[in-house]
Amino acid sequence: MTMLQENDVKQELLNAAMELFSEKGYDHTSVNAIIEKVGVSKGAFYHYFKSKEDVLEAVVAQYIEKEIQITHTIAENHRLNAIEKVSKLIGEVLGYKALTLKKRLKISSFFQDAGNVKFQRKVVESKFKLLHLPYRTIIEQGIQEGTFHIFYLEETIEQIMHMIVILNSAVTRLAADIEKRPDNIKMIKQKIEAYGDTIERILGVQKGSINLSEIIKIFEKQL
Amino acid sequence: MTMLQENDVKQELLNAAMELFSEKGYDHTSVNAIIEKVGVSKGAFYHYFKSKEDVLEAVVAQYIEKEIQITHTIAENHRLNAIEKVSKLIGEVLGYKALTLKKRLKISSFFQDAGNVKFQRKVVESKFKLLHLPYRTIIEQGIQEGTFHIFYLEETIEQIMHMIVILNSAVTRLAADIEKRPDNIKMIKQKIEAYGDTIERILGVQKGSINLSEIIKIFEKQL
Repeated sequence: MTMLQENDVKQELLNAAMELFSEKGYDHTSVNAIIEKVGVSKGAFYHYFKSKEDVLEAVVAQYIEKEIQITHTIAENHRLNAIEKVSKLIGEVLGYKALTLKKRLKISSFFQDAGNVKFQRKVVESKFKLLHLPYRTIIEQGIQEGTFHIFYLEETIEQIMHMIVILNSAVTRLAADIEKRPDNIKMIKQKIEAYGDTIERILGVQKGSINLSEIIKIFEKQL
Repeated sequence: MTMLQENDVKQELLNAAMELFSEKGYDHTSVNAIIEKVGVSKGAFYHYFKSKEDVLEAVVAQYIEKEIQITHTIAENHRLNAIEKVSKLIGEVLGYKALTLKKRLKISSFFQDAGNVKFQRKVVESKFKLLHLPYRTIIEQGIQEGTFHIFYLEETIEQIMHMIVILNSAVTRLAADIEKRPDNIKMIKQKIEAYGDTIERILGVQKGSINLSEIIKIFEKQL
């Protein structure tokens, strides 16, 4: 097999696993079901993964990879000031979530299943651990630039991460229901504005510094 | 049976259930084990509860009852202004949690068990639902008194509730480990100060308005 084919098989196994986990739940999906769906041998499966739990870890890693990558890229962008970084961060994370809403709703329902809670916790823990450094980079930059006014660095990082998680899940909940309740678009707009306002307050930046009008437009288009 | 005896039996069943759930987990506790522990008949059990799940609901309700009651009492206290109410609320909730730390650690480990996650979610959902009105009362009072400066009432209620939950669980985690790490008391102090500062910012009250020095002293004495 060439490298490309190898990666293809691995990715197909991951996609199949993700689909089966969200359809049947993790506990009711067997390794056999995964290899049958892809049409490869058990040997091929164990070439890439140690166990079913190992596949799930890879699914989790892939699930959060994009958000981690977006955050790192923004944190390390030398052309942006810290306020622009925060706006861009919220915008791109929410924008990515809006674009992948349908896929994520399936996965969310999987994570919300009681039996899968340890993996849901793993997602949040991995995310917080991996996001800590880029968040710290951005907040320290804002302090150096004199635009952020905070007293407690660690707690501010923690609170901003929580705020973005809470905003994301509120927006996802509202977006998931948008066909039945078209008015939810107004509530999404208000949520984003309200959380933007609170993030400004927590960071001690001037009111209106964080600009989220772009992301609100994206949601209005997408939904 | 007199009324008093009736309540005693019910409470004994609840206590026994809570202990067994936290020792063995909900799934591995039978109604038989509960009645054996108390020394009553199956008939007595079914006089008070419909099922094992029904006992758990009552355990959950009792678990959050004190926090709900503290919050309502403070919200309805006509002698306090809104800023005093917020200080007292954080202080009394954290103080109650400090006093009941050992008991709660047992219950937390039960809630953290994957199989019990739906009940953990029930705790948080019930709590947010039951706390919404008293929080709203306090925040509206602060707006009327001209000391709170916010634009988004619903989101502010939601964010303050989340902040207090996050602060509580951070403090509980640090307190649980205090024997091994005596320095955690400093970190608890800092957490409380940091979250107090953030709650002031979210509510738009003047820096230093919310006074949490009393609760910090309680923690220093308790731990």
